[in-house]
Amino acid sequence: MQPKEIAKDTAKVVQNYLTYKAVMLVIEQLAETNPGEAIWLRQYSSGGKLRDAETYIDEIMSQPRGKELALRIMTVRDSMAEQTLEFIPEIVIAGVKQDNLTHRRHLLERLTRSQLDVTSDSSLDVPEAKSETEESSD
Amino acid sequence: MQPKEIAKDTAKVVQNYLTYKAVMLVIEQLAETNPGEAIWLRQYSSGGKLRDAETYIDEIMSQPRGKELALRIMTVRDSMAEQTLEFIPEIVIAGVKQDNLTHRRHLLERLTRSQLDVTSDSSLDVPEAKSETEESSD
Repeated sequence: MQPKEIAKDTAKVVQNYLTYKAVMLVIEQLAETNPGEAIWLRQYSSGGKLRDAETYIDEIMSQPRGKELALRIMTVRDSMAEQTLEFIPEIVIAGVKQDNLTHRRHLLERLTRSQLDVTSDSSLDVPEAKSETEESSD
Repeated sequence: MQPKEIAKDTAKVVQNYLTYKAVMLVIEQLAETNPGEAIWLRQYSSGGKLRDAETYIDEIMSQPRGKELALRIMTVRDSMAEQTLEFIPEIVIAGVKQDNLTHRRHLLERLTRSQLDVTSDSSLDVPEAKSETEESSD
C-alpha cells in the first residue's frame, strides 16, 4: 500500500463526504424555501445512493426535476471544498496523535492497575501463601 | 452549517478512514509473518466495527491478544496521516472541479440533443413545457 494510493483513496472518500454534506445543506435550504422539493430530494437521496457521489449526480441529472438540483449541489460542494479543506491535514494529524496518546494512557493505566492487583495480592498474602503451601504439602 | 463544523466532521471521517486503512495494512503484513493473527484480526475487525475508529481501538485493547495489535495500528495510522494528508486539499478541490465540469458537459450534451430532437419533432412544444411547470409546483 503506497502513500500515493492511500492519498487517492482518501481524497475519493472526502469528495463523497462533501457531496453528502452539500446535499444535506441543499435539503436544509429547500426546507425553508420549497418544502415539497426538500422532501423529494431527501427521499431521492436515501437508501445509500450517496455512497458514490458521481453516480448519484449522474443519476439525479437524468430526473426531470433533478437537473437544477444537481447543478446546485455541485456548486455547493465546490465552495465547501474550497472553504473547509485547507486545515484538514493538520486537524487529522493532531487528532490522531491526541487520540493515540489517550489510548496509550488508558492501556498503561489498565496494565499498572492489574500489576498493582497482582503485587498487592502476593506481597501482603505471604503468610496465607505459606499456609496454602503447607496445606498443599499435607 | 458552518465551514468549521464541516471541517471537523470531515476530519473525523478521514481519521476513521485512515484507521481502516491502517488495519488493512497490518492484516496484509501479518498474513506474511503470522497468518493466524491475520485471520483473527480480519475476523475481529469485520461487521462494521471500524465505523467508529476510537471505539474500535478501545475495544481491541481490552482483548488479550489485542494490545500489541492496537499499538501497531496506532503507529501505522499516525505515519499514514503524516505521509499522505498534505496534498488531500488540492487533490479533492481539483477532483470536485473536474467532476463538476464533466457532469455539466454531459448535461449540456443531453439538453442539446433533446433540443435537437424537439426541433425536429415539432418546433413548438408549449404543452410539454407547461406540464413541467405544473410538476415543479408540486
